[in-house]
Amino acid sequence: MQRAAPQTFDRVLSSMCTEPHPAAREAAERFLATNPGDPATYAEVGELETRTVTMLGELAGLGSDRPNEAEVRATARDGPPHGYVTSGGTEANIQAVRSARNRGDAAEPNVVAPESVHFSFTKAAEVLGVELRTVPTDADHRADVDAVAAAVDEGTVLVVGVAGSTEYGRVDPIPELAEIAHETGAYCHVDAAWGGFLLPFTDHEWHFGHAPIDSMTIDPHKCGRAVIPAGGLLFRERAGMDALAVDTPYLESASQASLTGTRSGAGVAGAAAAMEALWPDGYRREYERADGLAGWFAGELRERGFDVADVELPIVVVDLSARAFDALRDRGWRLSRTESGLVRIVVMPHVTREMLREFLADLDGTR
Amino acid sequence: MQRAAPQTFDRVLSSMCTEPHPAAREAAERFLATNPGDPATYAEVGELETRTVTMLGELAGLGSDRPNEAEVRATARDGPPHGYVTSGGTEANIQAVRSARNRGDAAEPNVVAPESVHFSFTKAAEVLGVELRTVPTDADHRADVDAVAAAVDEGTVLVVGVAGSTEYGRVDPIPELAEIAHETGAYCHVDAAWGGFLLPFTDHEWHFGHAPIDSMTIDPHKCGRAVIPAGGLLFRERAGMDALAVDTPYLESASQASLTGTRSGAGVAGAAAAMEALWPDGYRREYERADGLAGWFAGELRERGFDVADVELPIVVVDLSARAFDALRDRGWRLSRTESGLVRIVVMPHVTREMLREFLADLDGTR
Repeated sequence: MQRAAPQTFDRVLSSMCTEPHPAAREAAERFLATNPGDPATYAEVGELETRTVTMLGELAGLGSDRPNEAEVRATARDGPPHGYVTSGGTEANIQAVRSARNRGDAAEPNVVAPESVHFSFTKAAEVLGVELRTVPTDADHRADVDAVAAAVDEGTVLVVGVAGSTEYGRVDPIPELAEIAHETGAYCHVDAAWGGFLLPFTDHEWHFGHAPIDSMTIDPHKCGRAVIPAGGLLFRERAGMDALAVDTPYLESASQASLTGTRSGAGVAGAAAAMEALWPDGYRREYERADGLAGWFAGELRERGFDVADVELPIVVVDLSARAFDALRDRGWRLSRTESGLVRIVVMPHVTREMLREFLADLDGTR
Repeated sequence: MQRAAPQTFDRVLSSMCTEPHPAAREAAERFLATNPGDPATYAEVGELETRTVTMLGELAGLGSDRPNEAEVRATARDGPPHGYVTSGGTEANIQAVRSARNRGDAAEPNVVAPESVHFSFTKAAEVLGVELRTVPTDADHRADVDAVAAAVDEGTVLVVGVAGSTEYGRVDPIPELAEIAHETGAYCHVDAAWGGFLLPFTDHEWHFGHAPIDSMTIDPHKCGRAVIPAGGLLFRERAGMDALAVDTPYLESASQASLTGTRSGAGVAGAAAAMEALWPDGYRREYERADGLAGWFAGELRERGFDVADVELPIVVVDLSARAFDALRDRGWRLSRTESGLVRIVVMPHVTREMLREFLADLDGTR
């Protein structure tokens, strides 16, 4: 079994992960046997994690190059941004809810989020014993600001906005959500797990430099082309991380804020290497390629008479019959469905025009 | 920074992780870009995870070769054992507490454990909103059965025993703890995160075949010589896993029991490869080597007049002065302290007699 063929991405249209950048793979292989969860013993990878979090901060508006100078003053920090490299977006989202729960003083805490949030918030609520209140999205699948405002109350510890939603790739009105959160005494978290490496090249308002948000999930192992496992969690204030810390006897370091204990040095080293190789120009080129390709693909589907949702970030949602879906699955295409049964195609770096032409030919063959 | 030198284990005496087996490293490198959290998309690594859990079950007394036939009948199962490859021991311990919390019906659930439990149970209690009741250990640092029996009540959902404790490498009286747990209507979890790959070659009673325990943590990335991240969680009954499952829209698979979402295919493939290469004879040879080496090292320390705890599994706990500790740290030795300030040396596969001779020479130089 250890000779099993590794995954190929030839026909994967369902995943938000992709082929890592060669520099990420090389760095990950060299750091396979390191544990950033014990930074005093594994000092080299500890330094790489600090560097990774600093670069994530630059993408997310916490860096020295942030566009909004008022935000710079509003975010006085010493040292790198506050955060760490998680096992993925689920850990980062659970930890953001946990930090808000621990910092809030609600007896029965609740989290308010649009129904478009990732299912990891359902997991977070169940694990952490908080109520998740999901509210409807608008006709374009974005958070409905009025519905969010109506759902918050004195028990609300966190309001969640999505910047690049899992189903439609939509960006919620983040500044408005942050305002609602702070008016009710709650924190505001942005889930940019998938969108965070695409949005810097758009004119969306989504990050710490655009709105007074408190925390963000942004995953190098999705559009950042790092190696799994490399998610990212950022906080505006150190108190966000401090609310997660537990004492760590036996380790050389004194406390640990991560949800897991031992962590992957390969993930951290791969994230640092990918971001150094690609930020910003490599990520910009990939965003422009994927954006153009998704637009072309949506047009091809519409020409064939299929109902296709407007494309914002490079995700194409199309209404295919169950018969066509099954026939394409039988031909090896890895496809996933939205909750409403539509087919979702994620245009990741491994997805090429040639692949999509093959897909269209196979689709034509099913009719 | 991506050129930073990777970790070497030359002077690491503080870690419960080690240099992976070459077969594990090779398999991990081939599966770096796979996600067992999405097994329908990444089918190959999904099969490797089933295989890994099956092998873990064999080590832990859930396999066809288990010694106690009554237990075989008591554990009727179809298919592989119930469990999955976690990010590490912390996730596995959190999930065992979560499963017991969810399966129990206590309004204010508590978990009873000896004070020797790993700090991940403190984290689990804080995350999950359960009370952790730690009770004293006996003079030999094992769980005190009477103290555990006195601490349980109708709110107790889980009793924890440790099989290879983090500080002294001790094995708690597992059959007695399981009996106390079941008499009070609680589940029994064994934390064999570190000890699980050593104990099969001892006469300890620690696993599913020795006692009616309900769940176990057993980590391939510690003494199993897999690649990080590869922890292991096993349940005797399917209901243990079912209590963790949440629905998963967008993925091709229907539900997810893991605490994290995206997971490391490298960790899963490395664990399968290491166990195929080393179970059982390779692990037996390593246990015998480490056991002999730890005994020799303890003797050398005693001859020098140091106070050394009895060695059970290959961990040597010695009383060194703060001055000696600092001098050895300055010479590059990675050491960790117990909560009571003693120095703990873990004899992992990368720790050789030559290393320990160098350490003793450096120690002699500090006097």
